[in-house]
Amino acid sequence: MINAEIMGHGVVGSGVAEILINHSDRIAEKVKDEIFVKYILDLRDFDNLSYSDKFIKDFNLILNDDSVKIVAEVMGGVNPAYDFVKSCLLAGKSVVTSNKELVAAKGAELLKIANDKNVNFLFEASVGGGIPILRPMSQCLAANKINSVTGILNGTTNYILNKMIVDNMAFEDALKLAQEKGFAEKDPTADIEGHDACRKVCILASLAFGRHVYPNQVKTEGITSITATDVEFADGFNCVIKLIGRTEMLESGKITATVRPTLVSRDNIISAVNGVFNTVMVSGDQTGDVLFYGKGAGKEATASAVVADMIDCAKHLNARKYLFWEDGDDDYVVEANEPTRLYIYAKSENYENLLENALALFGDKASYIKNKFKGEVAILTDTELESDLLEKANKLGADAIKIMHTLF
Amino acid sequence: MINAEIMGHGVVGSGVAEILINHSDRIAEKVKDEIFVKYILDLRDFDNLSYSDKFIKDFNLILNDDSVKIVAEVMGGVNPAYDFVKSCLLAGKSVVTSNKELVAAKGAELLKIANDKNVNFLFEASVGGGIPILRPMSQCLAANKINSVTGILNGTTNYILNKMIVDNMAFEDALKLAQEKGFAEKDPTADIEGHDACRKVCILASLAFGRHVYPNQVKTEGITSITATDVEFADGFNCVIKLIGRTEMLESGKITATVRPTLVSRDNIISAVNGVFNTVMVSGDQTGDVLFYGKGAGKEATASAVVADMIDCAKHLNARKYLFWEDGDDDYVVEANEPTRLYIYAKSENYENLLENALALFGDKASYIKNKFKGEVAILTDTELESDLLEKANKLGADAIKIMHTLF
Repeated sequence: MINAEIMGHGVVGSGVAEILINHSDRIAEKVKDEIFVKYILDLRDFDNLSYSDKFIKDFNLILNDDSVKIVAEVMGGVNPAYDFVKSCLLAGKSVVTSNKELVAAKGAELLKIANDKNVNFLFEASVGGGIPILRPMSQCLAANKINSVTGILNGTTNYILNKMIVDNMAFEDALKLAQEKGFAEKDPTADIEGHDACRKVCILASLAFGRHVYPNQVKTEGITSITATDVEFADGFNCVIKLIGRTEMLESGKITATVRPTLVSRDNIISAVNGVFNTVMVSGDQTGDVLFYGKGAGKEATASAVVADMIDCAKHLNARKYLFWEDGDDDYVVEANEPTRLYIYAKSENYENLLENALALFGDKASYIKNKFKGEVAILTDTELESDLLEKANKLGADAIKIMHTLF
Repeated sequence: MINAEIMGHGVVGSGVAEILINHSDRIAEKVKDEIFVKYILDLRDFDNLSYSDKFIKDFNLILNDDSVKIVAEVMGGVNPAYDFVKSCLLAGKSVVTSNKELVAAKGAELLKIANDKNVNFLFEASVGGGIPILRPMSQCLAANKINSVTGILNGTTNYILNKMIVDNMAFEDALKLAQEKGFAEKDPTADIEGHDACRKVCILASLAFGRHVYPNQVKTEGITSITATDVEFADGFNCVIKLIGRTEMLESGKITATVRPTLVSRDNIISAVNGVFNTVMVSGDQTGDVLFYGKGAGKEATASAVVADMIDCAKHLNARKYLFWEDGDDDYVVEANEPTRLYIYAKSENYENLLENALALFGDKASYIKNKFKGEVAILTDTELESDLLEKANKLGADAIKIMHTLF
């Protein structure tokens, strides 16, 4: 029997408890031993559960109980999760977490402690909920050099954008619907401003390229400024707008890391990822593009990923070591200036002048959609150096301008 | 230093050799030890390679060399691969293979020997080439009960069908183009008749549900009878035709296993998997649908999956044990009779009678596409018990009839 403990009994935590307790037979069969939930740490009271006797409020009970070998941290937030996780690792306990904020902020440090103590620190559930991504990325792609990782990492924003695309809804209406359906929180800031996707990009970039990327190093833009007009113009270019998180290794050995609304070509399978689904595409030098897809959130999916990590810990009580990265530094993440195609929306009271400038600047290899009545021109440029394209955009003589990146 | 050996120096084998030899530094860093290619077994001569000195023609040299710990079998075919692999496992060597035919025919037996001898028998490359599927299926979904596995498992047929859909090509022309491009072999039987996909269904079903499924237990149908007319009617129902391999757990504890052309709704992301790409969707009770996608074949992709398995062996010279299934039996795989929707194409010289029968039998909940000029009616039925639908189809009074399953 292996004693385990769950820190936090919210949505994910209760899911973890339910799977471990209700499916203990199935799990014991896979582990060849029983994973026994000894404690559940939560400051709230849960009196009417079949396992109410397991609840404790004092973290030190766990820390000082040497019989507890595996701890699931599903509280969320950096504090006090960071202190708790660090203490558990230092005490020689393996820790499993779904807490992307914690891993994005403190991953390198916690991985180092786990390594030194020869225990596991696993966090498959922190990216893509129930979709297996981190483990296949690190293990199965072991023979690959990874060039880039690109994904739709937030289900809430993907749901909202999808409603804007398919049902022509305005952003505010789509957000309201997402809140009614329980896909968006009352305070949706972390989702719609891209912060949640940013944390996942940190984890993916750290794992893919071996050095920690911190949230403030990821250039992050949310979806609040996307309009029905943008969606319509994108459609005209055979594209859909998605909130894309991406990290890429440059020739210089530095990397880029971004979260931003992006025009995705309908010829790219990422464009077909709809609703609350998430996806991650890993581009390796040997395998080419490999894509993982599934529900990126939800109680059962996330909890099952946490439990799978706990099973892995139980089968290998000493460090698995397949997840590891070094600390990062300030100038490791840079902004790229590479050949690319951009979407440029421009509006002017002097429409004829705007159109003339656009054609002169971007030539006949770019695509154009015009709305003379509204004084609008949308441009899908040819491939040119990004700085050159931005310079040209400045010369359009537009009263209003909006620029988005593209993915083909 | 860990000595390894490669059996076979064809497309995949030469790729494995190149990765191991050219990227030995990168691999040594991951393994924390060197994987050294000591022998390459092939009956042909390869005189002008930088590693020509490694070639041998006598299998016993490998078998009797106790210093060889890891063997990559990339010869293909059941014989003599089966004897060689079995002998290596019995001699205490770990074996990695990309040989789907071997695993589909002999997997349970070889896994049992590996288990008894406490060595590894890994075959990630046998399904989906470079796409990590088997490892994430078994490890990350450990906390799930798998309900079904559905996929596009053959790139050649997917390329051909895609050409028929996008470019309105006839089957024969699309096959010829695939052969010219190197996506189909001179003798394309194994691909277009579904045999290749059938072997992969065997492996997926065996792993998902824990008992061996043999190729003759999989109801297999190829794509040779698909016509441009079918493609057009499917399009009218907002579907595309794909060669779908599928296995499902029934309530009885028995399973289904099929390979057949299937109408896939454009609302299902599987419909967006085009060209030579493969995909596998795993449906679990906790995670819902999780999908893996990538190039299913190709020298580099397949070889990199073989090398990744070799790296795993090198890191864990004792049995990893995450891949395992028991032997199967004759009545374990059955044909299901469940509620479903079918595509029924019917043609008659007495068109009016055919149409009248169709409407009377399938009612207004079915969808119809009619071609009076050609005497054709295509029906997308409502959901009914499969046997009832087939009985009704028999009553249509058609001169010619074609029935396909659907995936929504």
